[in-house]
Amino acid sequence: MKKINIAILGYGVIGKGVFEICRNMPNINVVKILERKERFDQNYIELFTDNADEIFRNKKIDLVVEVLGGYDFAKQMIVKSLQYEKHVVTANKEVIAKDIDFLSNLASRSNISIAYEASVGGGIPIIKNIKELKKVNKISKISGILNGTTNFILTKMFEGLDFNEALKEAQRLGFAESDPTADLEGYDMMRKIAILSDLAWDTFIDINQIPQIGISKITKEDVLLAKENNKVIKFVCESSLNNDSIEIKVEPKIFDNNHFFSNVNNEFNAVILETFPNDTLTFIGKGAGSLPTASAIVLDIVDIIEERYINNYQNINKYKIN
Amino acid sequence: MKKINIAILGYGVIGKGVFEICRNMPNINVVKILERKERFDQNYIELFTDNADEIFRNKKIDLVVEVLGGYDFAKQMIVKSLQYEKHVVTANKEVIAKDIDFLSNLASRSNISIAYEASVGGGIPIIKNIKELKKVNKISKISGILNGTTNFILTKMFEGLDFNEALKEAQRLGFAESDPTADLEGYDMMRKIAILSDLAWDTFIDINQIPQIGISKITKEDVLLAKENNKVIKFVCESSLNNDSIEIKVEPKIFDNNHFFSNVNNEFNAVILETFPNDTLTFIGKGAGSLPTASAIVLDIVDIIEERYINNYQNINKYKIN
Repeated sequence: MKKINIAILGYGVIGKGVFEICRNMPNINVVKILERKERFDQNYIELFTDNADEIFRNKKIDLVVEVLGGYDFAKQMIVKSLQYEKHVVTANKEVIAKDIDFLSNLASRSNISIAYEASVGGGIPIIKNIKELKKVNKISKISGILNGTTNFILTKMFEGLDFNEALKEAQRLGFAESDPTADLEGYDMMRKIAILSDLAWDTFIDINQIPQIGISKITKEDVLLAKENNKVIKFVCESSLNNDSIEIKVEPKIFDNNHFFSNVNNEFNAVILETFPNDTLTFIGKGAGSLPTASAIVLDIVDIIEERYINNYQNINKYKIN
Repeated sequence: MKKINIAILGYGVIGKGVFEICRNMPNINVVKILERKERFDQNYIELFTDNADEIFRNKKIDLVVEVLGGYDFAKQMIVKSLQYEKHVVTANKEVIAKDIDFLSNLASRSNISIAYEASVGGGIPIIKNIKELKKVNKISKISGILNGTTNFILTKMFEGLDFNEALKEAQRLGFAESDPTADLEGYDMMRKIAILSDLAWDTFIDINQIPQIGISKITKEDVLLAKENNKVIKFVCESSLNNDSIEIKVEPKIFDNNHFFSNVNNEFNAVILETFPNDTLTFIGKGAGSLPTASAIVLDIVDIIEERYINNYQNINKYKIN
């Protein structure tokens, strides 16, 4: 059995999940964990460091898991890992959406991988399934409920709360951040739909070009009206390819009660792919949470160990963005 | 690019779909098609033969696609293909459910593959996703709507038809066979849930041990009562692992309107996997039809070409079957 030595950058909710799963995997050895000193886990103190260079310079470490969150420092760590010829597995949708083109090039120069299943849809294996499907199928449309926070808020509004009550409930349960702007205004979903579109159509979408409408203006009256008509409101991202252009947007949208999206509630995420010749495929799973996201990360690690990871992101097509 | 020469056994609905897709794949070359003389396609007459030995003895053919349907002759053809050291890709759920243990052994002796994504759930990549997931996750339960005919009939009953009207409509549209017993009594789903359970838990289930109740006794009154209570009736297969036993069954079951299964209508199929640590994953897609099924077959072929096919069916666990 091939084995791999890894480092985990960040020991937050997801980093802890990755560590927990990896401890039960006989082929994955966690050698170092990067964290600020005050957050070291005393039970595994020998693994912790607050000095990233210790990780980069350690030639035994083949792979770095980036679960720091944020943008600037995380990107810097990913770039350095690749420069030191270590594979990178990340859950960082902002870095991937903004920099996958650059990072893929950097990785391919050293014949290593940058893997990011966990950046979209938590535990849903959507990146892998798109990569596999596109070997035989043309994907014409991608639709997603890809933000757990807003889906939770809308679910609660359909259960009777108004927007502010639902937001407070989400914050109380830890589903929404104290500044929830990125979720509520759709910036989070813009990144995720860009990542999936880039992959499906071998392109690189500037996320600033994606039109977006947030959910903060949805009222109790909107919800009541939808309910009366056997409909639901879901906050979705959609992207479709038509000849030389991609139509892409993030917005709240009304769906019939018999649409697959209508039963995707609370923290669940879903993606619908319209393909030919395979027709419509729908994937539903937990879009967030420590263990589902960590499972996606560890599956990427296993693929890299087994040399099964598909490095097939390319930026070869230019499309108009509508 | 690696290329492969293949033969297709059977030029029915699925065989035609496979041929159509393969003609557009630069790495797959269809060398021979086995069919009865009266069904030869005059446009590709040079490819057709009614003599299977011509295929087995052709050393240029690396892979055989079995889409004959039925059991005895199909099994014989699969066994012979493996004996002649040709990879096999099949959509035959009856052969796989009854003989995967024997066939896997036969294939592994020659270091070739028997692939059967298309045998369960049409275009839904459920076999592949189970194989991938189980590298990191434990699957505790599999639930499926895995028969398009009966799901179509139940959908029509919820639209107002009685059982016999719905069956006739299914037959008129070609969704039900003239003898629909295997579908209506659940034998078809028994095979499919056995195939998925075998794979998920590395075992081999005798399909005769699976308790089953068909749908032919469901009345208009049952449907009305369910509707009044915001519920639906779906014909499902379920299998769960508890310590040393597998509880497995096929039966009509009542679901709330907000269950993922409740919107899986007509010819759609769905599978829900309960796993740890990834939590619940749901896959929905077209469960039948020429092109979705053919797409699953061609994806298996591509995996074999790229040496990415995972031969990980094993019969190493014995469970009590309840």
